[in-house]
Amino acid sequence: MDSDFGIARELSPLQQLRSQYRPELPPCLQGTTVRVELGDGTTVAKAGDAHIIARAFPHTLGQPLAHFLRATAKVPDAQIITEHPAIRVGIVFSGRQAPGGHNVVWGLYEALKVHNAKNTLLGFLGGSEGLFAQKTLEITDNVLQTYKNQGGFDLLGRTKDQIRTTEQVNAALKACMDLKLDGLIIIGGVTSNTDAAHLAEFFAEAKCPTKVVGVPVTINGDLKNQFVETNVGFDTTCKVNSQLISNTCTDALSAEKYYYFVRLMGRKHSHVALECTLQSHPNMVILGEEVTASKLTIFDITKQICDAVQARAEQDKNHGVILIPEGIVESIPELYALLKEIHGLLKEGVHADNISAKLSPWSSALFGFLPPFIKKQLLLHPESDDSAQLSQIETEKLLAYLVETEMNKRMKEGTYKGKKFNAICHFFGYQARGSLPSKFDCDYAYAMMTVKRWSQNSGSTTIGRPVIHPATVDLKGKAYELLRQNAQKFLMEDMYRNPGPLQYDGPGADAKAVSLCVEDQDYMGRIKKLQEYLDQVRTIVKPGCSQDVLKAALSVMASVTDVLSTISSSSTSGQQFA
Amino acid sequence: MDSDFGIARELSPLQQLRSQYRPELPPCLQGTTVRVELGDGTTVAKAGDAHIIARAFPHTLGQPLAHFLRATAKVPDAQIITEHPAIRVGIVFSGRQAPGGHNVVWGLYEALKVHNAKNTLLGFLGGSEGLFAQKTLEITDNVLQTYKNQGGFDLLGRTKDQIRTTEQVNAALKACMDLKLDGLIIIGGVTSNTDAAHLAEFFAEAKCPTKVVGVPVTINGDLKNQFVETNVGFDTTCKVNSQLISNTCTDALSAEKYYYFVRLMGRKHSHVALECTLQSHPNMVILGEEVTASKLTIFDITKQICDAVQARAEQDKNHGVILIPEGIVESIPELYALLKEIHGLLKEGVHADNISAKLSPWSSALFGFLPPFIKKQLLLHPESDDSAQLSQIETEKLLAYLVETEMNKRMKEGTYKGKKFNAICHFFGYQARGSLPSKFDCDYAYAMMTVKRWSQNSGSTTIGRPVIHPATVDLKGKAYELLRQNAQKFLMEDMYRNPGPLQYDGPGADAKAVSLCVEDQDYMGRIKKLQEYLDQVRTIVKPGCSQDVLKAALSVMASVTDVLSTISSSSTSGQQFA
Repeated sequence: MDSDFGIARELSPLQQLRSQYRPELPPCLQGTTVRVELGDGTTVAKAGDAHIIARAFPHTLGQPLAHFLRATAKVPDAQIITEHPAIRVGIVFSGRQAPGGHNVVWGLYEALKVHNAKNTLLGFLGGSEGLFAQKTLEITDNVLQTYKNQGGFDLLGRTKDQIRTTEQVNAALKACMDLKLDGLIIIGGVTSNTDAAHLAEFFAEAKCPTKVVGVPVTINGDLKNQFVETNVGFDTTCKVNSQLISNTCTDALSAEKYYYFVRLMGRKHSHVALECTLQSHPNMVILGEEVTASKLTIFDITKQICDAVQARAEQDKNHGVILIPEGIVESIPELYALLKEIHGLLKEGVHADNISAKLSPWSSALFGFLPPFIKKQLLLHPESDDSAQLSQIETEKLLAYLVETEMNKRMKEGTYKGKKFNAICHFFGYQARGSLPSKFDCDYAYAMMTVKRWSQNSGSTTIGRPVIHPATVDLKGKAYELLRQNAQKFLMEDMYRNPGPLQYDGPGADAKAVSLCVEDQDYMGRIKKLQEYLDQVRTIVKPGCSQDVLKAALSVMASVTDVLSTISSSSTSGQQFA
Repeated sequence: MDSDFGIARELSPLQQLRSQYRPELPPCLQGTTVRVELGDGTTVAKAGDAHIIARAFPHTLGQPLAHFLRATAKVPDAQIITEHPAIRVGIVFSGRQAPGGHNVVWGLYEALKVHNAKNTLLGFLGGSEGLFAQKTLEITDNVLQTYKNQGGFDLLGRTKDQIRTTEQVNAALKACMDLKLDGLIIIGGVTSNTDAAHLAEFFAEAKCPTKVVGVPVTINGDLKNQFVETNVGFDTTCKVNSQLISNTCTDALSAEKYYYFVRLMGRKHSHVALECTLQSHPNMVILGEEVTASKLTIFDITKQICDAVQARAEQDKNHGVILIPEGIVESIPELYALLKEIHGLLKEGVHADNISAKLSPWSSALFGFLPPFIKKQLLLHPESDDSAQLSQIETEKLLAYLVETEMNKRMKEGTYKGKKFNAICHFFGYQARGSLPSKFDCDYAYAMMTVKRWSQNSGSTTIGRPVIHPATVDLKGKAYELLRQNAQKFLMEDMYRNPGPLQYDGPGADAKAVSLCVEDQDYMGRIKKLQEYLDQVRTIVKPGCSQDVLKAALSVMASVTDVLSTISSSSTSGQQFA
């Protein structure tokens, strides 16, 4: 017997209500007519990579960006598509589960049916392995009934998140040919979208007519660029995590005797940790990007936390909450070097028990110093994307252990006079990524079928094979600036903020991620600034102004208008979902 | 500088909305007139304990139960109190934080002010230590502003949850005398309410006029008897935990490769685990009360889980969610015996490092067998109530480790043919008990100031000092029956139910705990049954029935009416909060 994917589920009252919710479509996706403006061909983000990317993607690089237009948009050379011959599309969950994944399937299904009732959507059962084995379930409204606006990936399931080896890409090709698919939608994060880009190229080379589309669905929020502002699942995950972080803040404040070290799932980069900090105002967050930028060692970080604990104790505060992104272990230089050595030895087939003897003197000294539990975790085999098994490495416990040791030492020496340091460790991730999706993720995911082939655009390389690099937290960005402006207050003044449990009605139900809003505000802020300039010109150039002023203004504005018209007609706005 | 207890907090939009919520008062507590019917004196739950309890509580045992009446109730000998001289009351958080604690303070404050505007409520800052040190904050509506319907105990804080030693009770007595308190309200769980009962007796003996009142506020839900159906905080905690458990169920079902072992905070007994199971339908729960009743060893439990994993694998299910109450370690006979030996040695002053050499042969063999991480945790000093530090003992990891070892063995032997067993462990507790309280807990806590001196009623003894025994899960009760009826389906059929995040509007916002509803239904069911009997009599005794039937009916019903009238007028209903 096979698994229970796609069977009807019993829904709780709240789930039932949610299943009735109709996501909103952006105006450019409403109706049956598709209006699309084709922009420039895609270019490579880093000019230096151009040669490698061009060689890896000879068939798919440089395709024009598609900008979907609302019915009222007046763009002279827009393509207006009103006829839609029947097509067959396959869809597969290839990444880790993220809230909203089901809505991508639902949104795609409805978009297909709205354009041609004869269109067919096939879901692959059991992720990429289902794709290779051609196990499908035809998506119907009936099948979707108990999955609309619900969490998880259990409508179709997922397995190994990989479509990469020769055997795997050939199996995928055969499946698409056998099933006569016009399109294959791959739902996932950075790794899956890298695979999708390579698969698209492989299909194009093999003259397979199936178009490959990657959809950025990942709680990590690291699949961002100028065209994709956020990822499906990030909003919900940050809201659920923030709820829990806030609860531990309240707990810390009530008993005033614990420091909570909370590690957050989110892979290598620190988007989740940054967003949760902005939502719930814990005392401290250690961002991987800061650690990298300042080349902080594990001892630097320990000292930083210890100094904070000591400063707080001097104000009679013996509690606190500290966030740690799960990827931090790969940001700390000496730990990363140690991990790379271990992974290298594991790849050579060295048994975990014999690795410590084969490390370089420097790594060996560090390894010897670490407590046994973390040693064991560092020796785990790397993931399929060569990163460490971040979810399994309890960095929060390592830091809590190092801080405790140091605080006990300071206490003995008399430099620390607070209460005995007590840490409680948490890892938040699994319990968030299975959540009912927020309204934002329901809407965003439902509209997501528009994002096409954007992936190779942010392509870059590691050795041999171009991959999509996950976006880092921008240390020059507005969100980080907001954190830095408040960091000292968060640290010392317990300005804990509790957004509360995820709501579907009332305050907070329509809240967007803080980091997203900050960027939005900046965009709108700059538009406002421009309007101020225009108003100033208008004030200066009024009936009664001198001929010279009028002449200068006319000349300059003619030139400005000319430049902007030229730029506008040849670029895409990057606001595809506005 | 002292801590930030009682200062105004910045509230999130949801918190602001919640702070506007008015809890509902039961009819018997509305208005300024107090109508109270005094029932029988309290008796001792177990007759065998009567002598010991009577000796421990000579001044406070046997006081009448107070039954508050609604304005429309017709009870001839009810005391009607309309005059309320001004009083001074102190309130202290003495137990672990539980959602709703702030509403007990608010409800008490408003009740005091409604009865006499000159009444004064003093909050003790920093828990029992604040009581001893007489650190107070006068509660005003202004102080309460940002704490109404909010989670945590940070309005007043808590410290050591103990008012027990001679020094402590004397300090409490001095505080109450110095501050001229008419009443002292102690908010907490089983231990704090035991202390409250003893303190009441101590005050009565010392002729201190301060009345001591214990209020059952505990996430554990173990302070139950015929008068107190549930505890403040239990509803919220179970809802937040169930949200997270359901999310891991969804996660398990999506990837089909993990077993989640989730340990739940809740002290010795398994009320939280039972309620969460009924709310979210995980595959399995190991209740401490079942373990005790069946005298299951750690190996029996391991085998039980392994057999379940194997049975599920035979149906191609390689995932699952298993709940484990944190108190289970004290329910497993051989582990409990080991713990008792360790605690005995620790009390004798034996250093943790030397304990393993001093254990009995049996305990020593078990101890030697256990993995290092759990050894270290078992060696921790016991809590103030002599129980182990349950939150620190990772039984879920021990069980996951034992199950993994056994499944690998079965795999090698060829008896288990499923996927390699993979466990992910969680401990849910701190992140739930700091939550915004549910509507139920807001209402229940707000009305809670009525529960008086009930505590000694469920008193029982350990050596020397009578204590309140926490209620166990009733293995003959309706809630447990509901679990047993469904256990096999939960185990094999993945009937996961997702109540979703705690809501304040729409479906689920007014949901009560399943275990509470089941009991309610039973109560209403029995009332219905009685009405059926009455209807049957009415049908039989109709005009046209024989004289004999009429005579018999009259005689029997006269007797029934007489008996019931007598019983009713001398008992309290146990439905004080109806």
